[in-house]
Amino acid sequence: MRDFVPPAARLRAQMAERILRVYESYGFELIETPALEDLAALLGSNAGENEKLVFKVLRRGARLEEAVAEGDELADTGLRFDLTVPLARFVSNHLNELPMPFKAAHIAPVWRAERPQRGRYREFTQCDIDIVGEASVAAEIELLGAGLEALGDLGLSGCTVRLNDRRLLREAVEAHIGAIEDPYPVYLALDRLDRSSPEEVASELAPFGAKKVSALLEWVARADLATAAGLPGTAAEAVADLRTTLSALEAAGASARFDPALVRGIGYYTAQIFEVSHPEVGHSLAGGGRYDSMTARLGGPELPMCGFSIGFERVFDLVDAAVFATGGARVAVLCASEAEMLQCLSVARTRRAAGRATYNVVRRARNARRQQDDLARLGYTEVVDGADFARGQ
Amino acid sequence: MRDFVPPAARLRAQMAERILRVYESYGFELIETPALEDLAALLGSNAGENEKLVFKVLRRGARLEEAVAEGDELADTGLRFDLTVPLARFVSNHLNELPMPFKAAHIAPVWRAERPQRGRYREFTQCDIDIVGEASVAAEIELLGAGLEALGDLGLSGCTVRLNDRRLLREAVEAHIGAIEDPYPVYLALDRLDRSSPEEVASELAPFGAKKVSALLEWVARADLATAAGLPGTAAEAVADLRTTLSALEAAGASARFDPALVRGIGYYTAQIFEVSHPEVGHSLAGGGRYDSMTARLGGPELPMCGFSIGFERVFDLVDAAVFATGGARVAVLCASEAEMLQCLSVARTRRAAGRATYNVVRRARNARRQQDDLARLGYTEVVDGADFARGQ
Repeated sequence: MRDFVPPAARLRAQMAERILRVYESYGFELIETPALEDLAALLGSNAGENEKLVFKVLRRGARLEEAVAEGDELADTGLRFDLTVPLARFVSNHLNELPMPFKAAHIAPVWRAERPQRGRYREFTQCDIDIVGEASVAAEIELLGAGLEALGDLGLSGCTVRLNDRRLLREAVEAHIGAIEDPYPVYLALDRLDRSSPEEVASELAPFGAKKVSALLEWVARADLATAAGLPGTAAEAVADLRTTLSALEAAGASARFDPALVRGIGYYTAQIFEVSHPEVGHSLAGGGRYDSMTARLGGPELPMCGFSIGFERVFDLVDAAVFATGGARVAVLCASEAEMLQCLSVARTRRAAGRATYNVVRRARNARRQQDDLARLGYTEVVDGADFARGQ
Repeated sequence: MRDFVPPAARLRAQMAERILRVYESYGFELIETPALEDLAALLGSNAGENEKLVFKVLRRGARLEEAVAEGDELADTGLRFDLTVPLARFVSNHLNELPMPFKAAHIAPVWRAERPQRGRYREFTQCDIDIVGEASVAAEIELLGAGLEALGDLGLSGCTVRLNDRRLLREAVEAHIGAIEDPYPVYLALDRLDRSSPEEVASELAPFGAKKVSALLEWVARADLATAAGLPGTAAEAVADLRTTLSALEAAGASARFDPALVRGIGYYTAQIFEVSHPEVGHSLAGGGRYDSMTARLGGPELPMCGFSIGFERVFDLVDAAVFATGGARVAVLCASEAEMLQCLSVARTRRAAGRATYNVVRRARNARRQQDDLARLGYTEVVDGADFARGQ
């Protein structure tokens, strides 16, 4: 977990505000949910690997003693590992207070007990939008439109969208290695194709038969929409939806393509899935997909749901700080004594009331050079002497 | 813990932005710290009652098994209960990266395992500003100036500041009931004078002797600055500082007074303390004080520190939503079919690019009356038919 020293935290807050402004211009409404959710909901969400990474919160006082005595669990709540499961729980709880269809924006930290490694954090921010109650790919198209515009507004234009559909993956698995009750472990193996060799993935799937696995990997490597439409069952519908999304994205000037190897390592997706990448980096900046059955699993009604999430940390690393340049003067006033500070605080109050500007009245530091450097780094373009400032010069 | 359904979460975000804008105009720099802190830091912070309310996070995997086997603690981290202890830890860790004096703004949720009761939440937001490295009351005066302006900017002018000083309380306790090593339990009893009768407080303090306790309670009820200055030791200095703060507040047009009964129930304060109240409510909206020794307790150097915190939830309940009225049209476009939605999404994209407005393209709900009501509640002033919108009418 990380601290953010100035000016990083300020830039992060400005970035979140910018993303939210774009989301709101599409009619997404901000929601807020608590950091802690019932452990049962987090662990029953079909979120795959993420469920293993939950930080669990120790039960309190008497309840803890009881739990230990009765062999109960030590924890009954945990920190959310994403914003999708909390949204589904939120929608189930507040159905009567929400417009339907409901378009939610959700910008907040999530926590995962990842092993420490470069670029992976145990606390990180997600910027999600979701549409609840829209079964057609109009939902996917709007999410992608708003998400790409938010990235573009931060100077990250030129992104590419890769699209696939879990229905296609399911039909491809069934056609090549046969019907299996839970294809999720196969998806997880395929998901590793971006960081493991095809040979490694093939050996992991070997129990299904080398020839069958080879045919599946061949499909994943080479399929186009025409061959995909030739799969049985729900494939034709999935391909029609993909064509609709692709042509809407193209009409909006976005770069988009079908990627039969796109899997996304989360269990709960049911249909179209997508990831957004930028030419400057190897990893995805954003992603999402449809997860229609989640509210039912959390005790609510069956509702179509589809979401899009910007990986805040990854985007922040890419964005040029100049994007956030604020208007208004930034003036630092350096004072030699308490009496001078009191005078300057009073003058600053009058000046501030007269127009939008920052007046930072502060004691003159012993290390003058370092104080100048610090103030420059924080964006102060004017540094004035307290005595002059107090005299109104 | 609470969910916030639309439009509450949007208004909350706007309120946080407004408060931050004012803080920043005084030169406070936003910082960000993780939700989880080392339990040792949280429990060694001299924060009194709050330390009992920490949500502890279960250690992970192998480390948990080891801990159980070796009789170690089940938890080594916890959710922060305020933003002051994390700030002191942050300053100790990043001393070489921060300007000094350092003016921090910190707006974030904190967690306390309170018993559920009206107006108390287990997750709530605090809006703090702190000055590190300024030993004079210029710090207190600037914090109060920025804090009162933030409240005024939200329409909450007419607030009253009550001021006291822990040095005075300490001298008053010593003068009336004698020197005691840890006066904090006496402070806690005095702090209850706003919700318990003087008789109840007196009986709690009875072990110190009825006559002595009665004299102390008499002092707390009646002291003014002149009598306070008559106490020995540090009292004269504390009174001089209070006079400086009071006259600066008066010069700035704020209502302020000395309150010898003001205690604040936290252990770590060392000198001036203050609370801000509003005529419309009985409880305080904000408060703070000086806590000079905290960094040393967390392994850092001795640094003067002083802070001010706005209780976000209490202020939000008071603020008139009209304060947040946003510019820009809000147009809802109701569509009958997927095809109509796709057309309208495309038209909305063009219109949005032409100026700041919200276009919310959404499926027409079966319950038309309810949809109209929902959209009105969310601030949509224009509701148009998708077919008309697509034709450009």
